[in-house]
Amino acid sequence: MDLQQIVDDTWNALADERGCGTPARYIPALAEVDPTKFGIAVATRSGEVHCAGDTDEPFSIQSISKVFVLAQALEREGLALWDAVGREPSGNAFNSIVQLEREKGIPRNPFINSGAIVTTDRFIGDRGPDEAVADLLAKLQNMGRDDDIGIDERVARSESETGARNRSLAYFMADFGRLLNPVEDVLSVYFRQCALALTCRQLADAALFLAFDGCDPVTRERMCSRERTRRINALMLLCGHYDNSGEFAFDVGFPGKSGVGGGILASIPGRATIAVWSPGLNRWGTSLLGARALAQIADRTGWSVFSGRLDEI
Amino acid sequence: MDLQQIVDDTWNALADERGCGTPARYIPALAEVDPTKFGIAVATRSGEVHCAGDTDEPFSIQSISKVFVLAQALEREGLALWDAVGREPSGNAFNSIVQLEREKGIPRNPFINSGAIVTTDRFIGDRGPDEAVADLLAKLQNMGRDDDIGIDERVARSESETGARNRSLAYFMADFGRLLNPVEDVLSVYFRQCALALTCRQLADAALFLAFDGCDPVTRERMCSRERTRRINALMLLCGHYDNSGEFAFDVGFPGKSGVGGGILASIPGRATIAVWSPGLNRWGTSLLGARALAQIADRTGWSVFSGRLDEI
Amino acid sequence: MDLQQIVDDTWNALADERGCGTPARYIPALAEVDPTKFGIAVATRSGEVHCAGDTDEPFSIQSISKVFVLAQALEREGLALWDAVGREPSGNAFNSIVQLEREKGIPRNPFINSGAIVTTDRFIGDRGPDEAVADLLAKLQNMGRDDDIGIDERVARSESETGARNRSLAYFMADFGRLLNPVEDVLSVYFRQCALALTCRQLADAALFLAFDGCDPVTRERMCSRERTRRINALMLLCGHYDNSGEFAFDVGFPGKSGVGGGILASIPGRATIAVWSPGLNRWGTSLLGARALAQIADRTGWSVFSGRLDEI
Amino acid sequence: MDLQQIVDDTWNALADERGCGTPARYIPALAEVDPTKFGIAVATRSGEVHCAGDTDEPFSIQSISKVFVLAQALEREGLALWDAVGREPSGNAFNSIVQLEREKGIPRNPFINSGAIVTTDRFIGDRGPDEAVADLLAKLQNMGRDDDIGIDERVARSESETGARNRSLAYFMADFGRLLNPVEDVLSVYFRQCALALTCRQLADAALFLAFDGCDPVTRERMCSRERTRRINALMLLCGHYDNSGEFAFDVGFPGKSGVGGGILASIPGRATIAVWSPGLNRWGTSLLGARALAQIADRTGWSVFSGRLDEI
Repeated sequence: MDLQQIVDDTWNALADERGCGTPARYIPALAEVDPTKFGIAVATRSGEVHCAGDTDEPFSIQSISKVFVLAQALEREGLALWDAVGREPSGNAFNSIVQLEREKGIPRNPFINSGAIVTTDRFIGDRGPDEAVADLLAKLQNMGRDDDIGIDERVARSESETGARNRSLAYFMADFGRLLNPVEDVLSVYFRQCALALTCRQLADAALFLAFDGCDPVTRERMCSRERTRRINALMLLCGHYDNSGEFAFDVGFPGKSGVGGGILASIPGRATIAVWSPGLNRWGTSLLGARALAQIADRTGWSVFSGRLDEI
Repeated sequence: MDLQQIVDDTWNALADERGCGTPARYIPALAEVDPTKFGIAVATRSGEVHCAGDTDEPFSIQSISKVFVLAQALEREGLALWDAVGREPSGNAFNSIVQLEREKGIPRNPFINSGAIVTTDRFIGDRGPDEAVADLLAKLQNMGRDDDIGIDERVARSESETGARNRSLAYFMADFGRLLNPVEDVLSVYFRQCALALTCRQLADAALFLAFDGCDPVTRERMCSRERTRRINALMLLCGHYDNSGEFAFDVGFPGKSGVGGGILASIPGRATIAVWSPGLNRWGTSLLGARALAQIADRTGWSVFSGRLDEI
Repeated sequence: MDLQQIVDDTWNALADERGCGTPARYIPALAEVDPTKFGIAVATRSGEVHCAGDTDEPFSIQSISKVFVLAQALEREGLALWDAVGREPSGNAFNSIVQLEREKGIPRNPFINSGAIVTTDRFIGDRGPDEAVADLLAKLQNMGRDDDIGIDERVARSESETGARNRSLAYFMADFGRLLNPVEDVLSVYFRQCALALTCRQLADAALFLAFDGCDPVTRERMCSRERTRRINALMLLCGHYDNSGEFAFDVGFPGKSGVGGGILASIPGRATIAVWSPGLNRWGTSLLGARALAQIADRTGWSVFSGRLDEI
Repeated sequence: MDLQQIVDDTWNALADERGCGTPARYIPALAEVDPTKFGIAVATRSGEVHCAGDTDEPFSIQSISKVFVLAQALEREGLALWDAVGREPSGNAFNSIVQLEREKGIPRNPFINSGAIVTTDRFIGDRGPDEAVADLLAKLQNMGRDDDIGIDERVARSESETGARNRSLAYFMADFGRLLNPVEDVLSVYFRQCALALTCRQLADAALFLAFDGCDPVTRERMCSRERTRRINALMLLCGHYDNSGEFAFDVGFPGKSGVGGGILASIPGRATIAVWSPGLNRWGTSLLGARALAQIADRTGWSVFSGRLDEI
């Protein structure tokens, strides 16, 4: 299987549709991004990254950061994290507060906003918020093999200024006594993690541990236990795209996590990671072209976990 | 990989815990089943079925029938089925009516009761209910390679007598105009499909098409299109166990569907199907021992789709 | 205060607007009613009934029947009725099933459909459904001083045929074990009580006990205890018009109960009862012209309980 | 009718039960109040105030302040206020956020917390928050005929520190664009209005306009239009006690508004206002002894609007 060929073919087959979908516009920094950007990066066990298109330009990874913070929070808290956040699909729009009330302030999973906020709270632990952000950044620079990985402070500020819904969720959980740190501290980390800016290449690299049972397959450094990695992959497949997760599972067939910046990170256990980027979103907030690129790659590679051709390749 | 050995080892490792969990008691016929029954059957591409324990005694497959009816309804209706029922996880208890109201009588997926009822309605189509049941039975006898497969009429009657919640769901959808057939006709099929009685061996056989892109790998007969089969597998992984689907996905790692009779059917695309049976349930209505048996098999075989060891075996 | 003059003036002031609003059309018998019908009847302590317009033509009283069945159920069950149904406003559309799930099958009050169904169940008690209907009818003929009061069987049949939502509610409660009688028995009474046909004159007469602490002020016959009557009046003011109760309370200012047949029954404790009829409804299912007639009468008489002029007249 | 006698008798009849119920403890200043305090003050048209017990000791009026802020907001905004907040009973616990989501950030009525917060926002208008508080205080000093009426700043601070749920509600509405002022500005006024401290005597005096169509019956000064006053009375009867409003309406039978400080303010249109105070609350947050005192007064005076004896006294 010539992965570079598949990546190139996929990019070329979809290039004419660059600009489709609707970019997020709720903050200026996202609205200003060139909507025709389109990049695909596939990282494999060997550390080789197969790229096509805009794979060396940083973009705001937004909710994709939830994957990395979850991995770090699990390493800090272990199973105790699951007392604070559930592990089941949500079945409601990503920012719904109804289920949160019904379930007494315990979010359904770490990938809806409320669940990500409480995960961030546990990730902070007893450090200060700034130290937590510094640690997260250092980790990503290490995993992404690039010290240039940083936070777009302008995006972070905008997130905070427009973050009424997230503030509401955080105070709601605080009212149930679910947060260990002050609400504004938790949010200050949360808004900064959403503003992490990575290139497709950096992102695919940084996530390789997901596909290889928690170890970076190149450096053999362990990032996450085998079991926790399996958990994260399961959560990505079941809950990685809010109310569009079922559709994504069918179309693509492997774990993924989308962000409203137009990025999608996918993990194909035992095989590869993929980062795609195209700013236009579908109605559920997932990159339209990105999801199609992943579906094409799934089709060409037979990597969908729901396809019986699995062992024919 | 010696599958028979894995099956035997798994059965032996768990045999002492037969009787754990709580069998369904809402109808006499289920309450009377010997709670220590325990069977495992693994069917593979060659048609060989690896068995251990009580694999030749029929049990009430209950909600596992939803998988077969979904496959048949898709063959009859095609994509139009998805106008009547969604394809996303539910995030509520399996019989919740709240989401149904919010979404105007369109159930979230075919594996919650409301979604299964509307799927049954479409499966009936313009046939009478008795003809629909006869067709379903014939199909299962064919796929399960056994003309003895039948319906436990006593269970069916009990289901109808105790079926107030399902009646409520059906009338609720009827009020939104979501059913094509009279409510009682739909329910009469639904209650009978739940009362289908199969052995583990028959069940694993009958489901082989799920693991092989829609074809019976032995007879090469096509039961379901490749794409629809992929869809069913995705739905099983994401929604096959109600509010326990996330946990099951992590523990087991391949598509499955549970029934309150204590059976679980699993599909491992490209590899095998597994039917397990043990009447004691966990709090979400999934067979306790059955789920553990599947987790052990997943561990031994490396079949979890979330594990990076996938290609090492 | 010349009540006849007030009634006449009100009728004349609104006569040009007959036909406004939207008549209920969900069953043929209601859709066929002449939409320009308009009647006002005010019954007072002396038994005198002040009438204007179409006050001698029977109409389908629909949900107004809930008031009479509640009074009868309270007489049969006493305080035990309140174990089965609540006494608080609902805050949701009249047929919502959400709150019913949250509160485990106990409806919020006797005037939403679910609450009326369980009230009917308790009214039936251990009689058969037909005997219960016969008793209700006899009571209404007595209170309404007219043996012609009857049930429109065609309406009752149509109610049953189109009653999917009410069936859903009833089976839902049955699933929680909230009904003492078989669902279809309860519904057969419920659909017939909704089909009771009374004239404005009969209706105002039959309800006089509500305004006079439970006694018919003419015959001095006690229909309901003083305390229960007070309870019914309170419920009518707080919950008599579904999600339009707050508006009605402000506009009119005394207890009332509307029906989708276009009737409204009002009780002004210590003073009078009023029955109005005009088929066109507002968006909450209350007679548009009927509510305006009551508001005008409230304005002229100073009978609003929220107005400080109360003692000036 | 000797009102002073009724007030004295009521106080004496209930004096032995002082201390019953559970005082609010969520902030220290409330938890420290002597739970045996018990006062009743009835103000009439002439300006005479009939008192018994602790009627000259200020207490935290908490949610009773919502009545005064509503009156002021209506005077500022007129009918436009009703675009921002509904006028129907809520049917959920007082701080529920579910209905708020369903209805896109528009609270059901001005007496649930979310509705009071948006009412406060409109009351502030384009003044600064401090000026709004100063104006509110001046108004209450004028209506309560006492310049000593003030705000307990310690209570206000505690409210703010423990106000996570209210912050959540406010940010939730802000996310829907429902607030004109910054969230923290609105809350700073809201927490201070809740901390208003009045005696029973001052409170009964300050509210007299409610019972007399918007005018202070002593000074003849107009505080609120006739129609708006009627609206406020209707809202108090239907929504003044959260999920206990139906019970209160039956037991007492006239408009009232409770606060978790143990006060209840009642308005009997055309007759009087009553302020009662006893810190122990029932499970819905209404003063237990206070509600019983009002029920006894209603019984003795015949002032319940649901009783047919109305004109017999």
